[in-house]
Amino acid sequence: MKDIAEHDLQHNIPLARRASPDQRTVVRVGSHDIGDGGLTIIGGPCTVESLEQTIDIGEHVKASGARILRGGAFKPLTFPYRSAKTFELREEGVAILAEASRRVGLPVVSELTDIRFVALFAEKIDMIQIGSRNMQNFPLLEAVAGTGKPVLLKRHFGCSLRDWLGAAEYLLYHGNPHVVLCERGVAAPHTHQPTSRFIVDLQVVPAVHEVTHLPIIVDPSHATFRRGYVAPIARAAVACGADGVMMDVHPVPEEAAVDPLQALDYDAFGALSSQLQKIWSVLHP
Amino acid sequence: MKDIAEHDLQHNIPLARRASPDQRTVVRVGSHDIGDGGLTIIGGPCTVESLEQTIDIGEHVKASGARILRGGAFKPLTFPYRSAKTFELREEGVAILAEASRRVGLPVVSELTDIRFVALFAEKIDMIQIGSRNMQNFPLLEAVAGTGKPVLLKRHFGCSLRDWLGAAEYLLYHGNPHVVLCERGVAAPHTHQPTSRFIVDLQVVPAVHEVTHLPIIVDPSHATFRRGYVAPIARAAVACGADGVMMDVHPVPEEAAVDPLQALDYDAFGALSSQLQKIWSVLHP
Amino acid sequence: MKDIAEHDLQHNIPLARRASPDQRTVVRVGSHDIGDGGLTIIGGPCTVESLEQTIDIGEHVKASGARILRGGAFKPLTFPYRSAKTFELREEGVAILAEASRRVGLPVVSELTDIRFVALFAEKIDMIQIGSRNMQNFPLLEAVAGTGKPVLLKRHFGCSLRDWLGAAEYLLYHGNPHVVLCERGVAAPHTHQPTSRFIVDLQVVPAVHEVTHLPIIVDPSHATFRRGYVAPIARAAVACGADGVMMDVHPVPEEAAVDPLQALDYDAFGALSSQLQKIWSVLHP
Amino acid sequence: MKDIAEHDLQHNIPLARRASPDQRTVVRVGSHDIGDGGLTIIGGPCTVESLEQTIDIGEHVKASGARILRGGAFKPLTFPYRSAKTFELREEGVAILAEASRRVGLPVVSELTDIRFVALFAEKIDMIQIGSRNMQNFPLLEAVAGTGKPVLLKRHFGCSLRDWLGAAEYLLYHGNPHVVLCERGVAAPHTHQPTSRFIVDLQVVPAVHEVTHLPIIVDPSHATFRRGYVAPIARAAVACGADGVMMDVHPVPEEAAVDPLQALDYDAFGALSSQLQKIWSVLHP
Repeated sequence: MKDIAEHDLQHNIPLARRASPDQRTVVRVGSHDIGDGGLTIIGGPCTVESLEQTIDIGEHVKASGARILRGGAFKPLTFPYRSAKTFELREEGVAILAEASRRVGLPVVSELTDIRFVALFAEKIDMIQIGSRNMQNFPLLEAVAGTGKPVLLKRHFGCSLRDWLGAAEYLLYHGNPHVVLCERGVAAPHTHQPTSRFIVDLQVVPAVHEVTHLPIIVDPSHATFRRGYVAPIARAAVACGADGVMMDVHPVPEEAAVDPLQALDYDAFGALSSQLQKIWSVLHP
Repeated sequence: MKDIAEHDLQHNIPLARRASPDQRTVVRVGSHDIGDGGLTIIGGPCTVESLEQTIDIGEHVKASGARILRGGAFKPLTFPYRSAKTFELREEGVAILAEASRRVGLPVVSELTDIRFVALFAEKIDMIQIGSRNMQNFPLLEAVAGTGKPVLLKRHFGCSLRDWLGAAEYLLYHGNPHVVLCERGVAAPHTHQPTSRFIVDLQVVPAVHEVTHLPIIVDPSHATFRRGYVAPIARAAVACGADGVMMDVHPVPEEAAVDPLQALDYDAFGALSSQLQKIWSVLHP
Repeated sequence: MKDIAEHDLQHNIPLARRASPDQRTVVRVGSHDIGDGGLTIIGGPCTVESLEQTIDIGEHVKASGARILRGGAFKPLTFPYRSAKTFELREEGVAILAEASRRVGLPVVSELTDIRFVALFAEKIDMIQIGSRNMQNFPLLEAVAGTGKPVLLKRHFGCSLRDWLGAAEYLLYHGNPHVVLCERGVAAPHTHQPTSRFIVDLQVVPAVHEVTHLPIIVDPSHATFRRGYVAPIARAAVACGADGVMMDVHPVPEEAAVDPLQALDYDAFGALSSQLQKIWSVLHP
Repeated sequence: MKDIAEHDLQHNIPLARRASPDQRTVVRVGSHDIGDGGLTIIGGPCTVESLEQTIDIGEHVKASGARILRGGAFKPLTFPYRSAKTFELREEGVAILAEASRRVGLPVVSELTDIRFVALFAEKIDMIQIGSRNMQNFPLLEAVAGTGKPVLLKRHFGCSLRDWLGAAEYLLYHGNPHVVLCERGVAAPHTHQPTSRFIVDLQVVPAVHEVTHLPIIVDPSHATFRRGYVAPIARAAVACGADGVMMDVHPVPEEAAVDPLQALDYDAFGALSSQLQKIWSVLHP
């Protein structure tokens, strides 16, 4: 029994499907490889606030074992209004990320939401993130595929594995093999509301490894929206076999411009990274 | 108790919220008004196949009481491959719709998926549909708002009423008040699988009328994916107070290029339209 | 394509499945037939409060066209504590219902939650309701089947049509053919929270008629938990083809002992019943 | 922000709520303590097939570190028909479990589905399991509470944490403080169907530890229904902070009488147990 019907594997995701048990894609981001058998830890601010802060965060997460810096410059928000505290630096944010990346010595991943900024991201950003809400924005997927840059494809919170791999197939079909999947929770009824909006689907980790050769990472920060859940779910993701995890990190989380409830501070991130490495070693003795 | 928190109404959807019980938006499409207290029936092919067929369908749905013609020229599909039978006519499809609209004498609604075709749609199409998957494609919403054309905003199958009204607020905030909401089913566990992928949320109809002044229609064809459910759910939508319904119609449904399981033939559409008008009369004696 | 796999129809629900298109079960309750082609309206208090009030409600709902009286004597509550206002009259409530039924001249349906009261219900109550939470309480189903009394089997809010018909099959297999199904909403993510906990699955109405010969009614009161949704969803249920609807009715709804937000008052129930009969006539001209 | 509203904590689950950060319930089963800071591994057959086999399984799981033996004697099945291979030994199964427990030297947990067998279980079984489908069978909960035996309370797949703790409160309110919670997956749309019916909600593990003093274990076998997911989810549960895990074990899984797709064989169980202990040590250095 497979997680995806044989018909789909053959006809709908011929490029994404795993043709043999040992087929696996390794995605190089800067000088780091995702999916090569090591654990990839990604950390950084939810939203870029300043160059100084981004560098500071970058240096701390690097010291704790992160191999990629994350940071948001464009943020899709549910409503068109933003509080005074919320800023979206857009092009300036991209420039800050590029500069911080260079200074810290870590490649950078950031979310692209608009087809008109594809060239900018292709020039400045090492790995382009397609956010949950744009998972099935097919013109955007085509344009990003055309850049040849590594892509981090987040799963929409209302979509199945089949839909998700269909989106990955668009990237592969349009010529870009450098695709990493990212689970960030699915909408479910009767979760422990009201504080957690999504349930992280960790069964999808072995399911992904069964049917596709693409690596998969988990984002416990945006999946749970709660600091207290980030460490448990990050550990669970690694224990489940994920190729990596991505977390929001902020020097003073409760002062973060966006999503202040979910970021980890430096100490928490450091302690967690250490646990993650040890759990990884249990699985790969 | 309200369906949306008072804070959201005040700060997040100040334009979409209903300020007084009698506030209601009427959206004019061609010479037809949606939300003016009459029933709006929309019909047409899932996907445009030819000019002749589109005109033929248009004439039949008009004769059965439809006031707007629908038709797809751009189709977001889960996978990048299309069977030989599936065609997506794109710009040519838009031209066919415009010509059929003129010949039949009905305004036309069609889905736009790509920001690069906004000007084309603004010129040729009377009402621009934002599909479920693009409900939170905010750059697309902004661009469509800029055209000033009536917009049919479908709810994403994984999104709440709050998210949906947030998307509507983007359109209103960017200067376009001509917004009609369209319910097309939500993903739910334990539906009567495997044949129906979504459950139509009909409670959202009175909920929408409670919190917003925007009209709401229901699309039972794409919500249920099954011909046998279209008539019952269309009748239920009208009985529930929806301002209109939109259905796929095809002369020979089982030969439809896309989604052959859900279209109604001319006779079924005619009989259903008659029932819908009678149910409407029960609610508006 | 069927809503239940052919294997299940043949091997798992051979008694519940519809063997031929014209096979239909008519369930007699008192002198009223459910599923004979007429519309069954059921009304009454959520919870029995007193004999006088129950008779008063019974007389009003009968005058408005209800054919069966409903009332709760045993109430499964989420928590073991009850406010001073909440009463559960238990055996006394059953006696009140029986007496009110006799005085008003309507058969009565009431929920049974405990296998130890099966004999009491068999003696006093015309139709035994199995509530949502006990849908898969198989010993209770077996015991109720043994009484030979008509059974109203509510769907669990977390269960599929397949699970539901499996529960119905238990009743049929243990010798009781007098089974009526009752839809009361399913848990779903991203409904228009926080005010509505369940989404009524109206597609299940045609699905039930497709695969089984058993009648189906809809309970919009317990499905929606909100007075403002009861009339729209009741109308939608009838428009969808349901064999009946069941509603909570109370002389002063906001003073109801249990679930004060969802009951209709006499006038609202009367006006709604009239609309329901008219919609029924549209479907059965 | 709490996972349960303050009002519920105070008024609806005053006994189940955690009154202070260090309050924790330790549940003794035989001579083993659940929730004392050590890891509890439970293993055994889905369904008891014979005394010899049960002893054999018991000895193997004990040798691999299990501290409690599990086994089903009464099985709630979706349909009333059972294949020739499926047996439900009922009273005989209970006797076998009691004897195997004595011979192997492990306490035993088994599911009780019928209020008429409470006394039998109280006499023979060390820990009484309330299955998912009976989570809100309140008469059964009351009767089981009356025995004073340790209870393993599984979460219904369609119920929230709030509902679940309400059920636990019934046990506590009726005088039985020996309650262990067991997560076994929740119904969700858009899981990686068709092979996995439920998504394990691992966020509920830290949520439970936040709001209640009761221990929590996870059952990856019945949650996932697939052997290939059992080890990843078991490891994830321990990494997430669960107090224990419970797994189906069978000498020849594909020949198991019930649920042959999900049991682990002895070697797989042994290897997994070893990993679980190591992950536990990462969390408790």
